[in-house]
Amino acid sequence: MANNVLNKELGPIVQKTMADVVEIRLREYLKEKSFKPGDPLPKELEIAQSLGVSRNVVREALSRLRMLGMVETKKKRGMVLSRPDILSSFERVLDPLIIGESTLQDIFEIRLTLEVGLADLLYLRKTKKDVEELEQIARNQKVTSGRQTFRIKNEIAFHGKIYQMTGNETLQRFQNMLLPVFGYLVSLEKVPIIGKVSHLDLVEILKHGSKEEFRQGMLQHLEHHFAKLK
Amino acid sequence: MANNVLNKELGPIVQKTMADVVEIRLREYLKEKSFKPGDPLPKELEIAQSLGVSRNVVREALSRLRMLGMVETKKKRGMVLSRPDILSSFERVLDPLIIGESTLQDIFEIRLTLEVGLADLLYLRKTKKDVEELEQIARNQKVTSGRQTFRIKNEIAFHGKIYQMTGNETLQRFQNMLLPVFGYLVSLEKVPIIGKVSHLDLVEILKHGSKEEFRQGMLQHLEHHFAKLK
Repeated sequence: MANNVLNKELGPIVQKTMADVVEIRLREYLKEKSFKPGDPLPKELEIAQSLGVSRNVVREALSRLRMLGMVETKKKRGMVLSRPDILSSFERVLDPLIIGESTLQDIFEIRLTLEVGLADLLYLRKTKKDVEELEQIARNQKVTSGRQTFRIKNEIAFHGKIYQMTGNETLQRFQNMLLPVFGYLVSLEKVPIIGKVSHLDLVEILKHGSKEEFRQGMLQHLEHHFAKLK
Repeated sequence: MANNVLNKELGPIVQKTMADVVEIRLREYLKEKSFKPGDPLPKELEIAQSLGVSRNVVREALSRLRMLGMVETKKKRGMVLSRPDILSSFERVLDPLIIGESTLQDIFEIRLTLEVGLADLLYLRKTKKDVEELEQIARNQKVTSGRQTFRIKNEIAFHGKIYQMTGNETLQRFQNMLLPVFGYLVSLEKVPIIGKVSHLDLVEILKHGSKEEFRQGMLQHLEHHFAKLK
């Protein structure tokens, strides 16, 4: 069975550790057998014997699944499959200092894409209270503008609030994770660029304008970012 | 130092294993010291001694970082920090059978948001060859329509090609990962729903229409999905 792992197309050879191999094999096994959250896993020793590897290696592989939130240990029941938090491992690696220039750029473009695309969810779910809070953030911004660190903080607060207003928790958490990346990119700008459409303008549209007007407003607000693409 | 991990706000108590604690501490350390890809890591034994834990626990924690692509072992140089593949761990947990209903719904909404938002990247980077290939996919679709499995496959091919045309590799890989989720959701539909704007209509817009026309076309194409939200 472990041969499955080896029978891939001819690509660059990446040396796998035993823990890599066992981890992959375990995930395949859980998938093949259609394990669902709550289902009990075989014991460490059983896995080691059936794969013909040491218990230490199995422990290492299980520890990885535990980190991903795919496995948890229950009192008296032992290890069971659990519902992973799909973003937690993503969060672990998203550090602008280590992910590299081209991925940073990709992520920035994904942010632009999401902000232009989210008008539909926003208009479906925004409340009067949300819009008032957003307006408050936009007003604070005017007062404190000038200092770079304040500016980034407010920029993040404003756009973060918009994501929250979409009512999509995964989207909101995804955005929260991307914040260090945006903060990093904004900090590289020497001169703060203010778009033709300001945060307060966007709030006005949310109050009295249509979904399409909001989308066009957001496009203009982000115009200087789009202008730099490619 | 390890106390940092414990001094959090009062929340539900989640029991951490030693490997959890050491993993968190190691990632904090790498961040505090501004480690960059290529920088050598302290040795396993040194880490164990300085944290006052067993070597096995350190090995387990390092194995997790290796899985995330944050650490690799170089010949003669030992362990170094490496550039992680930000999506690989995400990929590991994205199984529609285990991630749960509300996350599935969130992910589906994120897909809708991206497809409405991507017109800008698409018009910036699409080539004549791309559009021809997309047209070919849309034409195949007409022929094979009817059978559910064919339909899902073609649906995925068409929308996947559009993501590829944005030239954003991270976005494209992200979409590829989400495919099992979409396939799963589409397979739940009893009757295939054809939007007012078909795939071939979208191809026509890409050939002769504007970015805004494409966005409106995509909104109408996805209309029956949007109609079901909330």
